[in-house]
Amino acid sequence: MGTDKQKLREICRIAARVFFEKGYDGASMQDIAGAVGLTKAGLYHHVGSKNRLLFEIMSYGMDILHETVIDRVKSVADPRERLRQTIIGHIDLIVRARDLEITVILHENRSLKGALRRKINVRKREYIQMLEDLIAQVQREEGNAMISPRLAAFALLGIVNWLYQWYRPDGRIKEPELARSYVDFFFRGLLGEGQKSRHWRASGQL
Amino acid sequence: MGTDKQKLREICRIAARVFFEKGYDGASMQDIAGAVGLTKAGLYHHVGSKNRLLFEIMSYGMDILHETVIDRVKSVADPRERLRQTIIGHIDLIVRARDLEITVILHENRSLKGALRRKINVRKREYIQMLEDLIAQVQREEGNAMISPRLAAFALLGIVNWLYQWYRPDGRIKEPELARSYVDFFFRGLLGEGQKSRHWRASGQL
Repeated sequence: MGTDKQKLREICRIAARVFFEKGYDGASMQDIAGAVGLTKAGLYHHVGSKNRLLFEIMSYGMDILHETVIDRVKSVADPRERLRQTIIGHIDLIVRARDLEITVILHENRSLKGALRRKINVRKREYIQMLEDLIAQVQREEGNAMISPRLAAFALLGIVNWLYQWYRPDGRIKEPELARSYVDFFFRGLLGEGQKSRHWRASGQL
Repeated sequence: MGTDKQKLREICRIAARVFFEKGYDGASMQDIAGAVGLTKAGLYHHVGSKNRLLFEIMSYGMDILHETVIDRVKSVADPRERLRQTIIGHIDLIVRARDLEITVILHENRSLKGALRRKINVRKREYIQMLEDLIAQVQREEGNAMISPRLAAFALLGIVNWLYQWYRPDGRIKEPELARSYVDFFFRGLLGEGQKSRHWRASGQL
């Protein structure tokens, strides 16, 4: 990764925190320059404009999704195992505190305007399509189509992305329990499998 | 309902649209007064402050949730049927265009400060507790505890609340198909029931 890209990512991380705290409209470029330790002119040199900075933060969020979820599972041959690892990877991405601000900003994209917004939406749609195709593949292999792959993909995104609204890593529910519960819940919802022998109380974690 | 409350609700609906379009920090009280057709002094008379106005919008959102979901199902004796109707009612609330702005603002509550934020969070927690208790009741009646009621309640909230991010009522998927699919998906995830005979393609709606 080049130095320019590293610098841009550093700016994105800090700016995401400022937007998270003050809101996109409430945060000035001066606020962000101050937090990053640049002059306002220096900040504009790196990011072009405030809307472009928001776009860069969201692009960074999508890059992280690729690097920590998509790239890691693409060599997994079995579709069901690939889906399982995708869910676990996406949950891990959402709940880890390091990228919280970036995750939140990625979900609240109404401030992004015009062509930049469309670009981000294309990347989001590619991810959704990948999930949908993977779910359809699992359904075919299992000879089971209880729900439209598209509705199942959005149900999964809802369950996982909503975590940022409520889940606290230092709370009672630890991430392995969370991930296992939601992987099982999703596969039951998708395929209608009983797994009646597994009771959550037996885990002793809640 | 008194005239004052009706007036306040009208202000909330219009202000929600302005916040939705400009962001909470980007919208001025002057913008909102203009949209409502009041002087700025008149607007302050009705709502007290900008943060109080945001609180009133969110309270209105929680009132709608009570009126259209909770109050309608509380006379349903069978827990499973009550849970089913709660899911359908909540989906209907999220997808209907009339209250879209209020719904969105209810979910993006980082702008609300201090005691007012805590008040809204108490109301949200009451709803989550109601869902959790209802889910636990269904699990007891079915002799089935595959997932913690709390995790199941948040999975449901994620699936349903995420709809505002992607679902378009004028798209290919109509609300009855959506609601039926997600009710079935949730109950399979919760109870591990097969329902193997029902295939989504048979409905011909997707």
